[in-house]
Amino acid sequence: MLPPVLCFERGRDMDIAEEVLNGNRLALSRAITSIENEDEKSTEIMKRLYPHTGHAFVLGVTGPPGAGKSTLTDKMAREYRKRGMTVGIIAIDPTSPFSGGAILGDRIRMNGLTLDEGVFIRSMGTRGSLGGLSHKTADAVKAMDAFGKDIIFVETVGVGQSEVDIVKAADTTMVVLIPGMGDDIQAIKAGILEIGDVFTVNKADHDGADKLVREINMMLDLDGVMKDWRPPVEKVIANQNIGVKELIAQIEKHYDYIKSNGILAERRTKRTKDEILDILGSRIGSYITQKIVDDGRLDDYVEQIKARKTDPYTVVGNVLDEMLK
Amino acid sequence: MLPPVLCFERGRDMDIAEEVLNGNRLALSRAITSIENEDEKSTEIMKRLYPHTGHAFVLGVTGPPGAGKSTLTDKMAREYRKRGMTVGIIAIDPTSPFSGGAILGDRIRMNGLTLDEGVFIRSMGTRGSLGGLSHKTADAVKAMDAFGKDIIFVETVGVGQSEVDIVKAADTTMVVLIPGMGDDIQAIKAGILEIGDVFTVNKADHDGADKLVREINMMLDLDGVMKDWRPPVEKVIANQNIGVKELIAQIEKHYDYIKSNGILAERRTKRTKDEILDILGSRIGSYITQKIVDDGRLDDYVEQIKARKTDPYTVVGNVLDEMLK
Repeated sequence: MLPPVLCFERGRDMDIAEEVLNGNRLALSRAITSIENEDEKSTEIMKRLYPHTGHAFVLGVTGPPGAGKSTLTDKMAREYRKRGMTVGIIAIDPTSPFSGGAILGDRIRMNGLTLDEGVFIRSMGTRGSLGGLSHKTADAVKAMDAFGKDIIFVETVGVGQSEVDIVKAADTTMVVLIPGMGDDIQAIKAGILEIGDVFTVNKADHDGADKLVREINMMLDLDGVMKDWRPPVEKVIANQNIGVKELIAQIEKHYDYIKSNGILAERRTKRTKDEILDILGSRIGSYITQKIVDDGRLDDYVEQIKARKTDPYTVVGNVLDEMLK
Repeated sequence: MLPPVLCFERGRDMDIAEEVLNGNRLALSRAITSIENEDEKSTEIMKRLYPHTGHAFVLGVTGPPGAGKSTLTDKMAREYRKRGMTVGIIAIDPTSPFSGGAILGDRIRMNGLTLDEGVFIRSMGTRGSLGGLSHKTADAVKAMDAFGKDIIFVETVGVGQSEVDIVKAADTTMVVLIPGMGDDIQAIKAGILEIGDVFTVNKADHDGADKLVREINMMLDLDGVMKDWRPPVEKVIANQNIGVKELIAQIEKHYDYIKSNGILAERRTKRTKDEILDILGSRIGSYITQKIVDDGRLDDYVEQIKARKTDPYTVVGNVLDEMLK
């Protein structure tokens, strides 16, 4: 028997999902908060929303800090709005994993775009569990998709593994670079070469922009000999709205390309697979964690390991043997 | 009965661990390759090395791309060498997760330091499994520790969650920033404020260095009212070797501080706990993944989900119920 409060809660969760499907912005906001907090409601909400997903075009936007990704996203969003499309924006902020909270988003995004009912903007912080962000982002994308957004931007600041994982939620991935990033740019370029479907050099009026375009083109030529799609490299000046339409044309070209030859379907199948494995891994991890924390075994293990009587590898082997026999 | 080849392999793995403990550099290199590839040998090697760990001082070095972390690490390593300490350096490179391989390290690190027998440098790429890098890095640190290194630098390029996870392997964490990083610097500063034990403003001869120092100090003052340790903010010009000794003095001060009041012991206990849970999560994840891939169920699930007959959350719930009953 479920206690009455839980029944009521469960009733309300269904309502949140229903309200998202009815186009209620507040409900969408609550649904994403549930996803972010990984609370119990979120699974029920996602189950209800899932059948209504798969319609939106998901555009990943990534690149190093300072590349002007938010500005570019805003300009592109405005252009898509002019074309009558509804827009969702998910901005991943590199906030403190300890105190939580998304600092960047709310501050920078206070502009005209937020007054437009056809645009839904949401910042997501990196608080919470290890590696859980890619999964949460994917769920937030699905919530916006079920809500009815035509195009969803997923914007990440950074160049690390978590950003790459997040970008995997996208149909098309755009990499934004700027001239004059210093030594690490070589490594960054190497790291993102294979995830970019379209490359953008922002601040194209700055020194070194043409050189950067040439370098990227060279790397792509070396890399892309046997590939069907050669990523274009577009110059833009986002804050002056220069080059934005041309960039969108390239992005649409890529989207048409992956739609027409089955790559989109393939990518989405792959994504569904990764998703199952990802959810499975995190659920089972938290189940077992909880179990060995609750029965006090974790503390015992730590004491034994500290005394060098055993080691983490042996401990894990024993726990696994016991749980999965 | 184990087949003879496996017995031989197992024999060789023990040799690798023994050779690491004997101070054989080639063996250390092989051990870390095993760790990186997550091959079967690595667990046996780590079990053997584990009792010999816990002696090295582990210094995390993080900050945004272009901050000059490698240059600073090199200068600091030279200074520690002068003081008779042996040095290990693990450089995490944001390389392609698809093609693998560490591009940055080998190219940039070709300097005098690599000829010094007292220094062991290793690049680790972000290839391989989701979130596995923090665990692999922690194992590489342990291998260097067992090998006998006195101080081990763990250097990460980036500001994402994976970098933060990696830094958790450190006793003391140094954050390197430079003036003129653009808008995202606010978010970066917010994100790293709580992980930094010592802050360094590199390229201190550039415009805006003093302003950046003031900004960081202000944020630390706001944040640190109730804290025992107020992170210092040091100016350096790494490529001219200016300020490096003063920086090391601050780092030693922090190390003495955490040693004397039990924080170091506490951090290491916490780390051991996280480590058990981390290894447990990844092992169990790959076990179950393998299982549902092997029996063909994953493909069936994906087809059903694509037809929207079910959803990933329901599928995962069913798999878990079955495996963990």
